[in-house]
This record gives sequence, structure tokens and C-alpha cells, in this order.
Amino acid sequence: MSEVNIVVGLSGVGKSTVIEEAMLLSDEDYEVINYGDRMIEVAKEEGLVEHRDDMKKLDTDTYKRIQRTAAESIVEDSEDQDVLVDTHAAIKSPFGYIPGLPKWTVANLKPSKIIILDASAEEIYSRSTSDEGRSREHDSVEEIDEYRKVAREMAAAGSVLTGAYLQIIKNSDGRAERAAEKLVETLRS
Amino acid sequence: MSEVNIVVGLSGVGKSTVIEEAMLLSDEDYEVINYGDRMIEVAKEEGLVEHRDDMKKLDTDTYKRIQRTAAESIVEDSEDQDVLVDTHAAIKSPFGYIPGLPKWTVANLKPSKIIILDASAEEIYSRSTSDEGRSREHDSVEEIDEYRKVAREMAAAGSVLTGAYLQIIKNSDGRAERAAEKLVETLRS
Amino acid sequence: MSEVNIVVGLSGVGKSTVIEEAMLLSDEDYEVINYGDRMIEVAKEEGLVEHRDDMKKLDTDTYKRIQRTAAESIVEDSEDQDVLVDTHAAIKSPFGYIPGLPKWTVANLKPSKIIILDASAEEIYSRSTSDEGRSREHDSVEEIDEYRKVAREMAAAGSVLTGAYLQIIKNSDGRAERAAEKLVETLRS
Repeated sequence: MSEVNIVVGLSGVGKSTVIEEAMLLSDEDYEVINYGDRMIEVAKEEGLVEHRDDMKKLDTDTYKRIQRTAAESIVEDSEDQDVLVDTHAAIKSPFGYIPGLPKWTVANLKPSKIIILDASAEEIYSRSTSDEGRSREHDSVEEIDEYRKVAREMAAAGSVLTGAYLQIIKNSDGRAERAAEKLVETLRS
Repeated sequence: MSEVNIVVGLSGVGKSTVIEEAMLLSDEDYEVINYGDRMIEVAKEEGLVEHRDDMKKLDTDTYKRIQRTAAESIVEDSEDQDVLVDTHAAIKSPFGYIPGLPKWTVANLKPSKIIILDASAEEIYSRSTSDEGRSREHDSVEEIDEYRKVAREMAAAGSVLTGAYLQIIKNSDGRAERAAEKLVETLRS
Repeated sequence: MSEVNIVVGLSGVGKSTVIEEAMLLSDEDYEVINYGDRMIEVAKEEGLVEHRDDMKKLDTDTYKRIQRTAAESIVEDSEDQDVLVDTHAAIKSPFGYIPGLPKWTVANLKPSKIIILDASAEEIYSRSTSDEGRSREHDSVEEIDEYRKVAREMAAAGSVLTGAYLQIIKNSDGRAERAAEKLVETLRS
């Protein structure tokens, strides 16, 4: 009776921090799986890539096949333990938004819940610019708002395809612990 | 050549009133079916619940099965008569939005039209608070706006899955009759 | 290895102009196919219509069948050459938004990219009213905004169903050439 839950959120929304904190707060154990990392592992096993950066060189059909195989490998993991998949509903590229949970992925994962970690476009913008060590992830508040909308629309389509609950949790500035608590409550239900 | 039409809308939007008024105005006969009520009937027939409140205790897989069976029973009804299904595109719960028209439901119902009854978040908020006898359905105008967006996104996904027309009818304060007329015109087409 | 790309956009967004300009700028050849025209050709071949206006008289089931057959004929064309399909994600009618890329269409086309040409509601409104020779396409800025949202939601659902990239390109006043360049870059990738 173990289950798959999916947590999505834009870069800069504080997803890793909130998931980490939630795992500390939670009484239950979850295997946290980063979908992108799992895809790289699959591609490495198949001898297709050596480094993370090689993923971008895969042609679209191969990329989609790896995406599907990674989903199947996550489903296998979920037979023994509840799983929390850390991923994106949409990934912004210069050539458009790539759906992070296309039909063949989300239909395989059969998630109980799709959980969106969200913040205001202004908060995401200031978080992504205040960190000197990283290149700026987002160009403008307006673009972040478009990105947020597209990601939520894609997550909603995934919910309709699978029947998964769609939860939206705000990770407002200075309130990561509250967001983590809300995540634990949502997972527990 | 009878057909299934679906009317959705948030609690507080005035859906029941508008549907009732539309049925009085319309020259044609429709069997108005409340999807939630039909699910309870199905669950009672199977001996799973005795009262409405027991529905919340069903596990997710059973709930989805009842949801599907109710859709099939509505389709049977529609063989003899045009049907108007009164339901929700999304149902808000503490653990997330539950899709009210997930793929297996909407694909079974094959609706001609999905009709959203809508009002501004402010109107929905004030309607839900002015009624002393009921517990407040919505916490804030901001939350209602999120709910409205998610419901429309899920309805749009249902439209893409089935090819159903997606109509949006505003039920503004004091204009329920206009909304009912628009509903009749939409159904007639 | 040829591919299907889809360009959608509201009437008044300048879609034809941008596509024409992009085809002039591009080093690669694309067969530009207007989806509506292709549907009319199919319906004419089957002896169902004589003129464009007759399309509105087709019953829903016939319309959907023509829509599907047109998609199949576009897929055949794409075996020899890259294809650019000029269509709508949603078509506004008095009885609701008709999904222009319902599941059976988009799943057949298997697009690499769904590209939305967009402009602000104000720009679309003023473009649709300044042209004296045509009847006004849009009633108000508010209605255009609703239309834009529904179209984007339906396009996002199509992207989730197919894995297609979802690109949004702004065609701001006086910047059609920039939009055409962006379209070429997107197609090239």
C-alpha cells in the first residue's frame, strides 16, 4: 500500500530546503528521489552519457525513453517504500517549456498527490538574484509569472490524467518551516 | 442523439439556483443529475456507506471505482434523455484539490459541453460569508482566486481530452436570470 | 526525421504575418499547413461541403471525424518534409471554446513543439478594432484575456499529452520581425 507523491516547484522556490526540513519533521519514512538524477543514472547505465551535461545532447526520442524508464524504476522503488519524487512540472528552455510530467511519465508514476511548492514571482526573483555564486536563473518577474502559470497548468493536466490530488503550498520568505509542516500534513493524509 | 452536458462551479457561485432557473426557462427536458448524489447512491447499493458522511472514509481506490461506476450509470441514463450533470471541476480539500472530472470520468461521460459557472472571487467570498446558517466555505478572496484558476485549468484539460466545448458563464450579483438564459442558449445549440 | 510543429494564436495576434516573415528568414523549408483549410479540403473531397461556411453545418461527430482525418493527412505530409501547422488552441464560439487541439488531433500530430503567438489583450483588442474592413473579432479586453488564458491552458494540456515543447512568443506592436526571428530560432532547435 505504499504510494508515490510528486513535489514540483520552480528553481528558486526553495524546494530542496522544504523537502529536507519536511523529512526531518515527518514520523514516516520516504525515499526522496530526484527525477533528474534518476534519469542520469538510467542514461549512464545504458552507456549513453558520462556526465550530467551530456543529457542535453540526447535526441528527443532517446530523452523521452530515458524519462519513461526512470519512471518505471521509481515505480519499482515504491513497491517497498513510500516515495517522494522531486521534479518539475515544466522546465524552461530557450525553445520552450518542456513538460516535466508528460502523460507517459505521470501515468506510470500514478501519484497519490502532486504538490506544487510556490512563492510569489517577486520572491522567486529576489532569491534567484541574491545568490552571487549562481548565474541568474530568471530574467524578470514577468517571465517568472508566466513560468509559474505554465507549470501549474501542466501539473493540473497531470492531476486530471491520474486523479492525483493537486496541492499548492506557499513557501513565503522566512516561513520555510511552515511550508515543511504543510508538506508533512499533506503527505500524511 | 441525446447528450451529456456538465455544469461545474465553485460552492458559492450560485450553481443550483442558475440550473433550476434554466430548467424553468428551457423548452427542452433534461435529467439533472448531481454527480455527488449519484456516487452516494452507487456506494449505498454496494453496501459501502450508509450516510453521505461515510463517503470520506472510503479509501482512494474504492472512491475512484465508485466515481467511474457513477459515470457509467449517468451514461446509461443519457441513452433515453439529455442529461445535465451538476458537479465540480475541482474539489478543495485540506490535502489538495481533488479533480472532479478526472480522465476516466470525463472520458466515460463524453460530454458535449463543459460549462463553468463563474463569478468574481469577491462575489463568491461575500456570498459564502453572508449566509449565517452555513459554515464559511472559503477563507479568503486570494484563495478563491487560486481555486477558480485550478478549476478552470482542470476543466480545460477535460475539454482537450474529450473535445467538449468549454463554456464560461458569469453569474454576477443580481443577474442569475441572465446566467440562466445563457445556460439555456448554450445547451440548446 | 522530419517533424511537425504547431503554431497557435488568437485572431488579431498577427500569426499569418509572423509565420510569413519567419519563412522568409529561415534557411530551412517547411510546408505551412493551415489546419482549417485542410479540414475543408478533406470535407470537400468527401462531398460533405461546398464552401467554407458549410463547415458550421456539420454535426459534431462528423466535424470531429474530419478533424481527425485532417490530422492524419498532415502526418502523411510530414513524412517528406518538416511541417508547420497554423491553427488555434481554442476557437471561441457563442456556445463555448472549441478545443482546436483535442486529444485525438494532437496525439496524431505528435508535435515537437507547440508555439503560442501571444500579445497583450490590449494590443489584440486595438488590432481587431482598427481594421475597418473586418467585423470586430473581440468584444472587450476582459474577454480577450479570458480567451488567452483558456487557449494557453488547452495548449499546455496538449503539451502534457504529447511531450511537445510549449513555447510562448510575444508579438508586441511594431516588433513582428523580432517575433519571426524567435520563431525561426525555436523551429531550428
